[in-house]
Amino acid sequence: MTKKIAILGASGYTGAELVRLIATHPDMEIAALAAERKAGLKMADVFPHLRHLDLPDLVRIDEIDFAGIDLCFCALPHKTSQEVIRDLPRDLKIVDLSADFRLRDPAAYEKWYGNAHAAVEMQGEAVYGLTEFYRNDIRAARLVAGTGCNAATGQFALRPLISAGVIGLDDIILDMKCAVSGAGRSLKENLLHAELSEGYNAYAVGGTHRHLGEFDQEFAALAGREVKVQFTPHLIPANRGILATGYVSGDAAQVHETFAKAYADEPFVEVLPFGQTPSTHHVRGSNFVHVGVTGDRIAGRAILIVALDNLTKGSSGQALQNANLMLGLEETAGLMMAPLFP
Amino acid sequence: MTKKIAILGASGYTGAELVRLIATHPDMEIAALAAERKAGLKMADVFPHLRHLDLPDLVRIDEIDFAGIDLCFCALPHKTSQEVIRDLPRDLKIVDLSADFRLRDPAAYEKWYGNAHAAVEMQGEAVYGLTEFYRNDIRAARLVAGTGCNAATGQFALRPLISAGVIGLDDIILDMKCAVSGAGRSLKENLLHAELSEGYNAYAVGGTHRHLGEFDQEFAALAGREVKVQFTPHLIPANRGILATGYVSGDAAQVHETFAKAYADEPFVEVLPFGQTPSTHHVRGSNFVHVGVTGDRIAGRAILIVALDNLTKGSSGQALQNANLMLGLEETAGLMMAPLFP
Amino acid sequence: MTKKIAILGASGYTGAELVRLIATHPDMEIAALAAERKAGLKMADVFPHLRHLDLPDLVRIDEIDFAGIDLCFCALPHKTSQEVIRDLPRDLKIVDLSADFRLRDPAAYEKWYGNAHAAVEMQGEAVYGLTEFYRNDIRAARLVAGTGCNAATGQFALRPLISAGVIGLDDIILDMKCAVSGAGRSLKENLLHAELSEGYNAYAVGGTHRHLGEFDQEFAALAGREVKVQFTPHLIPANRGILATGYVSGDAAQVHETFAKAYADEPFVEVLPFGQTPSTHHVRGSNFVHVGVTGDRIAGRAILIVALDNLTKGSSGQALQNANLMLGLEETAGLMMAPLFP
Amino acid sequence: MTKKIAILGASGYTGAELVRLIATHPDMEIAALAAERKAGLKMADVFPHLRHLDLPDLVRIDEIDFAGIDLCFCALPHKTSQEVIRDLPRDLKIVDLSADFRLRDPAAYEKWYGNAHAAVEMQGEAVYGLTEFYRNDIRAARLVAGTGCNAATGQFALRPLISAGVIGLDDIILDMKCAVSGAGRSLKENLLHAELSEGYNAYAVGGTHRHLGEFDQEFAALAGREVKVQFTPHLIPANRGILATGYVSGDAAQVHETFAKAYADEPFVEVLPFGQTPSTHHVRGSNFVHVGVTGDRIAGRAILIVALDNLTKGSSGQALQNANLMLGLEETAGLMMAPLFP
Repeated sequence: MTKKIAILGASGYTGAELVRLIATHPDMEIAALAAERKAGLKMADVFPHLRHLDLPDLVRIDEIDFAGIDLCFCALPHKTSQEVIRDLPRDLKIVDLSADFRLRDPAAYEKWYGNAHAAVEMQGEAVYGLTEFYRNDIRAARLVAGTGCNAATGQFALRPLISAGVIGLDDIILDMKCAVSGAGRSLKENLLHAELSEGYNAYAVGGTHRHLGEFDQEFAALAGREVKVQFTPHLIPANRGILATGYVSGDAAQVHETFAKAYADEPFVEVLPFGQTPSTHHVRGSNFVHVGVTGDRIAGRAILIVALDNLTKGSSGQALQNANLMLGLEETAGLMMAPLFP
Repeated sequence: MTKKIAILGASGYTGAELVRLIATHPDMEIAALAAERKAGLKMADVFPHLRHLDLPDLVRIDEIDFAGIDLCFCALPHKTSQEVIRDLPRDLKIVDLSADFRLRDPAAYEKWYGNAHAAVEMQGEAVYGLTEFYRNDIRAARLVAGTGCNAATGQFALRPLISAGVIGLDDIILDMKCAVSGAGRSLKENLLHAELSEGYNAYAVGGTHRHLGEFDQEFAALAGREVKVQFTPHLIPANRGILATGYVSGDAAQVHETFAKAYADEPFVEVLPFGQTPSTHHVRGSNFVHVGVTGDRIAGRAILIVALDNLTKGSSGQALQNANLMLGLEETAGLMMAPLFP
Repeated sequence: MTKKIAILGASGYTGAELVRLIATHPDMEIAALAAERKAGLKMADVFPHLRHLDLPDLVRIDEIDFAGIDLCFCALPHKTSQEVIRDLPRDLKIVDLSADFRLRDPAAYEKWYGNAHAAVEMQGEAVYGLTEFYRNDIRAARLVAGTGCNAATGQFALRPLISAGVIGLDDIILDMKCAVSGAGRSLKENLLHAELSEGYNAYAVGGTHRHLGEFDQEFAALAGREVKVQFTPHLIPANRGILATGYVSGDAAQVHETFAKAYADEPFVEVLPFGQTPSTHHVRGSNFVHVGVTGDRIAGRAILIVALDNLTKGSSGQALQNANLMLGLEETAGLMMAPLFP
Repeated sequence: MTKKIAILGASGYTGAELVRLIATHPDMEIAALAAERKAGLKMADVFPHLRHLDLPDLVRIDEIDFAGIDLCFCALPHKTSQEVIRDLPRDLKIVDLSADFRLRDPAAYEKWYGNAHAAVEMQGEAVYGLTEFYRNDIRAARLVAGTGCNAATGQFALRPLISAGVIGLDDIILDMKCAVSGAGRSLKENLLHAELSEGYNAYAVGGTHRHLGEFDQEFAALAGREVKVQFTPHLIPANRGILATGYVSGDAAQVHETFAKAYADEPFVEVLPFGQTPSTHHVRGSNFVHVGVTGDRIAGRAILIVALDNLTKGSSGQALQNANLMLGLEETAGLMMAPLFP
């Protein structure tokens, strides 16, 4: 039976991406679209690329009758999300795309986000949404917290290696190259075409990026000890994609084997032959993750490169993958479209 | 029953686009992929974005057993295509994406393409592949000639207007803005990123572009007289998309009504409200066509703007739409994916 | 003797472009930089690419002592500019880059800009700043009104032809392709990288763009009668450049000769050999204008293509060229840098 | 007195960049331009952006009379360059932009470039062309070997730190982001706009990039011991710029002080305030280098970020800076143009 879906925050990029994906999903139907400041508009006015779809008009959240909704995606800004979710029906299945329920420890949340959490009691309930590693928990979850897009990319690079104990834990560096849609549809000078195209730069340098909170939480849980990675994101003149270049100590061949084994049955993770490295070109618009490993001329060093689309696998595609599990649908439903190239 | 598909010329952009589309088609299966110079390679070596698919390896055309093939797409270069198609089984359904069978008149072909046609007898057999206007013929066709991508765009802008007699025929101007993938995967200096990005220019100026042959043929047939449009293409630093800006004499409101009526039942053509104009951003990666009309401060002038994706609706998507009809499948099967934005 | 220069509105793109150009000007020195909302900041904070220069800090306009200033550039928004200029010392030489003094007729100004002019008496005094055509007036002027960037491009395409009477006046079409910096450093959704890159669209369609006011004024003066052109601008994913494609009736060879003669002695205007067409790639970052002409397969039709950099020749470079004349300096001083390619 | 300049290899990007820079040089004049395969053409045919300049036509190298030439730039491909330079007059001042004379050790050359050197005796004569660190030697040199563009960037990040002994030498990582013009005007599939724009990837991963030969040579000389850095370049969809992100162990404040002191008097090197990081946007088209330092949340780690334009400071600008010194001209002559932004 077709599942009824609501999307809160439908006027942002992750909201629109959810609509794009659900548009061809065999078992879902969009029943409600909310966007506070754009309530009353048609989706085609806000996102003309969705013009061909027969969608409900945008409404305010309080106009939605959640009684008939099977699952609700929250694509709202951080902080707003926790306040909204706190007040939603307690039996409503929810996939939150914000940062609000990613960190289980209220203190860690407060440290990285700078405010006390408004729904502390739900932080414990939420399941961390990195599907490939929390699949069973997600199936049973009522509230799933989608991961940060950088956080997802870095974890695809490191989780199997930390779990298998094949790399050193004290000298991990993640140098990331991030496309601009990760910053959302926000009006900031550095996101203008004239300011961004044709150049690139680091940002949130020096261990200040909030996604470090997720790395710290997840890697410590895997390793059974504190693991502090260095993580430097860079803003690249492209719209979609994250490329993580990981520098670790370890045997490169063993690293590759570990990946091959860990991801052997994953429908969305492709491990490239040893020595080949992925490109964001080849995952754009899709839910796939490409993982590559090479050695270095310096013995005992391995280089990990992971590419995914921040809006799809890094956010809305991941969210849909989780929703499929929560609703008892095929995990890959609506998500097998090939990347768009060129 | 699943239809078996062969693609000749699978190492070019239109070939890869066909694979992308067919990958999620419910009723088709790729049975053979040919690429003469890359025979022996895996598709993932040539197009890593298709790595997740279970595809046959690339072979030479003469290695294919066409006995089990239901339909063959030819995405070969012009001239090569006619030579190959001439020698394919006579009962094989074929959609040709090249220019070779678009012009019914051998003299017109020779004029625009500079060589005598190698399969003159098949020129008459071929049906012109602009689905929305040749639907019934295509259903019954064995050989369909996909249109030029610019030719398709210009015809979406002009055919209903010429048919309805609502515009002047002697002062039609089509100024087109074309993305670079229309030039294919060819190694030319002006297609390099360093040469193309951050700037733009006209090309094939002055009535020399080959797609004029299609305009001349089709518009004359509609009007019952010679119709010579001015057509100037421009190369724009983007990968997908054609935007046609048409300048015509006529009543803009009447033009808009004519479009609304002509395209009312078309699943892939969206006519925007009067005064709104489309963007290539909003059709990228999809089979949709967006059509807009405005008036001008000069009475009696109308401006037509049409956007489509040259690789999808302008080429491989159109080809698949035609193949669906030829195989008795749902016309829209595999083609309803929403555009990719941003 | 080095001339002391003030720039009002130094925090926008045209202000920064003036600083870039004056930085290597042999006879000018920047004595004051004003930016109301950024007063107190260093220019390097607002435009880090100017970090190496020894520049005065940004101040409010009312903090500037104009006594020692030889010439003042006003790179302020429309409407603000007229209010500021009205109150500047009456003997101060001024080059205004806004639209405020381009239209000599207060009614025309009000029609296109929607508000009554606040300094009507100065509209008559201002000289229109298209250097190549108003050179002598500019030399003697106190107040020069820089042209619109599209207006400049279209006039380079049409003025010599209208003056020489070699084209029809009733069917002129200017289809323009404009880079994004023409929209300034303003925070608008459609100017974001994610919204603009990889796609393109028309805007201000249907004879509504304000630069039409300049075309109307200037072409009527040349022709001695009303000349209404059709002008449709398109927003292209590039940062600098305007390409005008002009469609006119006339003999293409005669058109080319007319250009060759008109621009023979111009240091910044390059007329390409007949049949060649320019690209915005080849004028980027420079004060040069490239002009090309072809015929069409339709006899009696000519296609004009003009390329310039909107921020340089279309705005700040033009302004500096005018300032050179007003200050008795070499017209080309500080302006002969070659375009940046790639 | 004006110096007569020859440029061999004028049809590539570094050749064109030399012409762009010399075009406004007060003391140089281009006397000869050679390009074997394009001999006979005008420079404007090969690089239309140089159309406004009065330049000699392209000739073959053997057509040049070097008697009247004061200095010759060789912008030829690797390997060709050594063969050509070997046969040039022995008293001719030469700045070579290729890799052929960068490595002083013939064995190192052969290791990284895969062929025996054809002018071994001249390898010892050549001075390494990183101006800021070899200034006095360059003044007296006859043959200067321009550095690799990545090699220059990495050395601006590391030389002062290695010399001052303020960082560890065994865990240096250079993650570089490189624009496409560094690959030259070569027809390769991965350099096409359609393949490169909108995505990014690593290349020459694992310690295989040839510029490592320069790092090894130079850092060992500074440190008095072997220093092996990890260096991974990434290809970014932009035309100009290199951004090096360096990860080192050391005290970040001390690192910053070391930079501030080392570069205090350098006309082209700007050290940003501690904690600020540069962008390639802000050096494009210029000879400037921007250097930034931050600490990390992990004590004892510093992050170095260096930006420069690969075609200017990384190649042709550096070459001109060296030529100025060799000819007894002002070091900064012709090189003080501000970056082009946006």
